[in-house]
Amino acid sequence: MIYYIAVDIGGTRLRAARYPLEGLTADEVTRIHTKHKTEKPLERLINLLSDVWPEDGLVKAISVAVPGPTDPYRGVIIDAPNIPGWENLPLQQILEDRFQTPVALVNDANAAALGEWRYGAGQGHHDMLYLTISTGIGSGIIVNDRLLLGAHGLAGELGHTTILVNGPTCGCGQAGHLEALASGTAMLRWVEEQLTRGAISSLPKDEPLTGKMINRAAEAGDELSIQALSRAGTYIGIAIASFLQIFNPTVVVIGGGVSQSGDLLMVPLRHALEEHAMAPQYLDNLTITRALFGDEAGLVGALTLARELYPD
Amino acid sequence: MIYYIAVDIGGTRLRAARYPLEGLTADEVTRIHTKHKTEKPLERLINLLSDVWPEDGLVKAISVAVPGPTDPYRGVIIDAPNIPGWENLPLQQILEDRFQTPVALVNDANAAALGEWRYGAGQGHHDMLYLTISTGIGSGIIVNDRLLLGAHGLAGELGHTTILVNGPTCGCGQAGHLEALASGTAMLRWVEEQLTRGAISSLPKDEPLTGKMINRAAEAGDELSIQALSRAGTYIGIAIASFLQIFNPTVVVIGGGVSQSGDLLMVPLRHALEEHAMAPQYLDNLTITRALFGDEAGLVGALTLARELYPD
Repeated sequence: MIYYIAVDIGGTRLRAARYPLEGLTADEVTRIHTKHKTEKPLERLINLLSDVWPEDGLVKAISVAVPGPTDPYRGVIIDAPNIPGWENLPLQQILEDRFQTPVALVNDANAAALGEWRYGAGQGHHDMLYLTISTGIGSGIIVNDRLLLGAHGLAGELGHTTILVNGPTCGCGQAGHLEALASGTAMLRWVEEQLTRGAISSLPKDEPLTGKMINRAAEAGDELSIQALSRAGTYIGIAIASFLQIFNPTVVVIGGGVSQSGDLLMVPLRHALEEHAMAPQYLDNLTITRALFGDEAGLVGALTLARELYPD
Repeated sequence: MIYYIAVDIGGTRLRAARYPLEGLTADEVTRIHTKHKTEKPLERLINLLSDVWPEDGLVKAISVAVPGPTDPYRGVIIDAPNIPGWENLPLQQILEDRFQTPVALVNDANAAALGEWRYGAGQGHHDMLYLTISTGIGSGIIVNDRLLLGAHGLAGELGHTTILVNGPTCGCGQAGHLEALASGTAMLRWVEEQLTRGAISSLPKDEPLTGKMINRAAEAGDELSIQALSRAGTYIGIAIASFLQIFNPTVVVIGGGVSQSGDLLMVPLRHALEEHAMAPQYLDNLTITRALFGDEAGLVGALTLARELYPD
């Protein structure tokens, strides 16, 4: 048997899955916590890979989805903000030396975009935008059937587009990025500000708020929560209008926890998008759709990359 | 002899040039006004093409740079705002029928980007952004040695990226686009607003202002004019920081009349860009440079397209 091994690295969990040459059904999946009292994340990753390694057969390639900026050409993790010490980490070389197998690295949002394009909501499209709206806003872009990587593999950061000069501060430290206005974190911050200013809401006042609480309250009719989702959806729609004019894609795929909010986010998003597109042609034959893969987006994406780079 | 014919359509002038298979020296160049009392622009274009048609020899292709959104796949001008009646004009078919020669259409900013990439300031780069700052802001993007066109050829409109939600109105009718904040038109509007509010300036008060006047006054030390250029440069720099994160190019080429302002625009632009890039890697090995071609950018670009599509 010949296999691909896909790895999804997260700040809290490491996951690895062994896939056959075709299909999306893994023969073996394992997951462990990224952090541990005595073992470092890199040791844990190597042990995890050993766990899914086949007893018989060949591994054609290992492909790793990384939570942070990654140079896929050099195989170096530039920065993984949630994993202390992973800066300029030549993970490709380390794993190739250890496993004597080709290794590919890719940023996790780029991986997810690849997976949605090949096996998910973007199938059959040549030009696709993928946005994942959760605590941050990640993205990946398919141009002409290829993942947009740019000169050093750092392209595709749509969440860090300035849409409001001098706007609120983003997780990256800059001001007015889409992520700073419409991510789950931005939404929580906005709701907390409104509550501090005395806004009326059914949200609990004695415990830390979460995105899920806002979703639930919005569904139950809480005006402030509805407004929070609508505000985020509007900003995302305005930004997507610009992205349509930059990329002229036929599909926009939206994933991530916040996209689970359904119509309360998506209706204002579509409305803003239609209002802000500068010509109707950008909306012709355009599909806006939810991502097919949820939690497994990173694994499927890493698998997709491995199959692209090392086809059977 | 074998030739290419390149055409640059403008709201005020039509230009055509006949080029040999290689080099940038035209054998014949003609230019006429686009508008005329009795002749329609399309008739004038056809006459212009006849004028540069070789007496002996073969024309391999005609390539046309169009001042407005154009579908290069279908060969249709969707809209040319400065030429009345040119909406959904199937110019490719019209010219192919008339001249029995392959015809290609391309948006003029995309053409200029192609020209700069092949023969100008972007030579040797695989990933390039081109911005032309004049009355509006046009742009063209090279990704992996290809012009970014998108599904219907309408991609690359970086000037219509929203960078200030609810900001000033753009020529396209939308709010807060880069063009509405940093084009020549936007600069004039801002200066006029400041003058109305009583700003002190050496600019003439009794005649309509032009971009050239602002340039000249700025060079002579007029604070308001210096501020106008600095403000535009800052917005362009902030926008380019976002575009670097989207495309991760190795070169940004800046053309158009406003770019002639030199350091008074470029220094604030570079400063804003460096301040707003979210990671230093986006600035590594990045060249920011002025365009090589000025007025002839459209012709050189159309020629480049013809040579790409119909190589010798």
